Amino acid sequence: MIANAYRTQVPQTLTSTLVPQMLAEYGALTRAAMKHYLSAGEPRRYLYDLLADYPERGGKMMRPSLCIATARAFGAPVEAALSTAVAIEILHNALLIHDDIQDESEQRRGRPTLHVLHGIPLAINAGDTMTLMSLHPLMDNRSIIGEALAARVLEETERTALQSAEGQAIEIGWRRDNLFDFDDTDYLELVLKKTCWLATIHPGRVGALIAAQDTVDLEPFVRFGFFLGAAFQIQDDLLNLIGDEETYGKELDGDIFEGKRTLMLIRLFRESNSAERAQIRDLFALPRNRRTLEQVRHVRALMDKYDCINYARAIAHGLVGAAQHEYSLLYDGLPASRDKDFIRGLVTWVIERTST
Amino acid sequence: MIANAYRTQVPQTLTSTLVPQMLAEYGALTRAAMKHYLSAGEPRRYLYDLLADYPERGGKMMRPSLCIATARAFGAPVEAALSTAVAIEILHNALLIHDDIQDESEQRRGRPTLHVLHGIPLAINAGDTMTLMSLHPLMDNRSIIGEALAARVLEETERTALQSAEGQAIEIGWRRDNLFDFDDTDYLELVLKKTCWLATIHPGRVGALIAAQDTVDLEPFVRFGFFLGAAFQIQDDLLNLIGDEETYGKELDGDIFEGKRTLMLIRLFRESNSAERAQIRDLFALPRNRRTLEQVRHVRALMDKYDCINYARAIAHGLVGAAQHEYSLLYDGLPASRDKDFIRGLVTWVIERTST
Repeated sequence: MIANAYRTQVPQTLTSTLVPQMLAEYGALTRAAMKHYLSAGEPRRYLYDLLADYPERGGKMMRPSLCIATARAFGAPVEAALSTAVAIEILHNALLIHDDIQDESEQRRGRPTLHVLHGIPLAINAGDTMTLMSLHPLMDNRSIIGEALAARVLEETERTALQSAEGQAIEIGWRRDNLFDFDDTDYLELVLKKTCWLATIHPGRVGALIAAQDTVDLEPFVRFGFFLGAAFQIQDDLLNLIGDEETYGKELDGDIFEGKRTLMLIRLFRESNSAERAQIRDLFALPRNRRTLEQVRHVRALMDKYDCINYARAIAHGLVGAAQHEYSLLYDGLPASRDKDFIRGLVTWVIERTST
Repeated sequence: MIANAYRTQVPQTLTSTLVPQMLAEYGALTRAAMKHYLSAGEPRRYLYDLLADYPERGGKMMRPSLCIATARAFGAPVEAALSTAVAIEILHNALLIHDDIQDESEQRRGRPTLHVLHGIPLAINAGDTMTLMSLHPLMDNRSIIGEALAARVLEETERTALQSAEGQAIEIGWRRDNLFDFDDTDYLELVLKKTCWLATIHPGRVGALIAAQDTVDLEPFVRFGFFLGAAFQIQDDLLNLIGDEETYGKELDGDIFEGKRTLMLIRLFRESNSAERAQIRDLFALPRNRRTLEQVRHVRALMDKYDCINYARAIAHGLVGAAQHEYSLLYDGLPASRDKDFIRGLVTWVIERTST
């Protein structure tokens, strides 16, 4: 059992009560504003109905909430950050649509993925359109926060989306070429690009930028967001293995089926013997639909044999500790606020949550 | 034989000499500037090499050339339009990558398509990244043509890309649901969205906008670009049936294999008898890889039986005549220039060219 050292620093109520409360609150605000941007036109059945689908299925709303909370903690009103938060959530949904095609995922938020429902060509097009739609609130920013700041937010968004695309390319490439031989640093560099920039770095940076303009150094948000986002991703991948089927919303062990290079799989490959390694390589050299449930269960059992789950959990805890340190540097000097508390609680929430 | 009425209005040298010359000239300028935006980073083999591929294969460069020529004809220097032209060409290449996946195309500009070379997941991601990259020159516009005009160009681009996405959705939807029962108006509405906005309407609108700011009415560019772009698309589809294999760069009859709803196929379905209709429906209900060459040749023969090629050619000629009329309204009052002549020649070039 791992000692939860990080736990001593944060009152339990922040994580278990305030965080879900504020995710619901800022999530609802964002959702209402999103509706305006994703409003239905024609062709409805081939395009606009598809755009509305993933957002209507729910989602944690962590990304837009972190953006709004950061802006407020640094002194801006909600209205100043809302359209930027909307853009982040729309872009996130756009990437999910393409992710699901690329990973051949079958379930998303408890229902069949968009390409399973409508075919790959229409789903690609829906993802493209969502990306495009994320530009709209950023252009509207001009009349809300002014030309100069709106342009800075747009630049930050473009930079972030490019990081996501580079991370996505690396992850797909590793899988396509059936590569496994990575150390934890390779994994963390991947996650920095693929996950952290859009999920946790960018919402913090643009939130602070909107509130404090150029008076605050945005560099520390990269470190804070990296530790927070990496812990978040590891927990996401853990839930895929040990989550509760009811609340999870995707196929359990789906990541193994997809050959996703998680911290657990990378450790397994590093620790296993040469016969096991050969088995693993052979399994993932097969197309996804030729991998059997039995093979997947075997990999899952090997992960237990080599203690991969506890190992990954310990790393996630370490990352949360580092995120707490960065949190102090960024936020301790600011006036007390619910938003500050929310962000503080979020740091432990990312690894204590039991659903994705 | 159709009388080439449109021909009497335009000196042959414009079409056969000046147009290729200026496409080469403005194309080279655009290509050089594009290199800067698509410069290689990491991961090279999973992302940046893929981005460079389609642009390096060539392409007509009609879209950026029309943008630059329009701007110059209305009095702007090349430099004012160049980054906008680059954005148009990058966006066009981005859409080609996704188009090829959606249509299951095998060849592009004489080589295998990107997803054939690298797999669908990496090709989707490359297309996403290219779309993102098209934003960059538009943001650089701020220091070239000023904040306000740069914002207008960005708005125009977003509007255009949305039209393309709606058109793409309709075309894919028709094919997915195996629908055929359209009249020429349905086809032309599809092409307006799918092709004309990005290929011919937008380059004209933003070219004029950059040169004349808000002193010129952009509405007539929609009509001009519609007639021009629809004629262009019909010729593209005709070349797929009657082009020269050497210079064509894609599979001949590939559109029939893909079940593309061209003006010729729509006419064929409308004119054919009920037994033939059933054959056509059944053929296109099969997945692409189960359609045989023999079946495709049969459809091709039916197109000759019902004179579909001459029919489509006549409509393209009519559209060129209409485009010439709109050209006069837009350009006759402007001072004489090579750029004006280029655009005039382009109107006939779109249907006289023998390669895509």
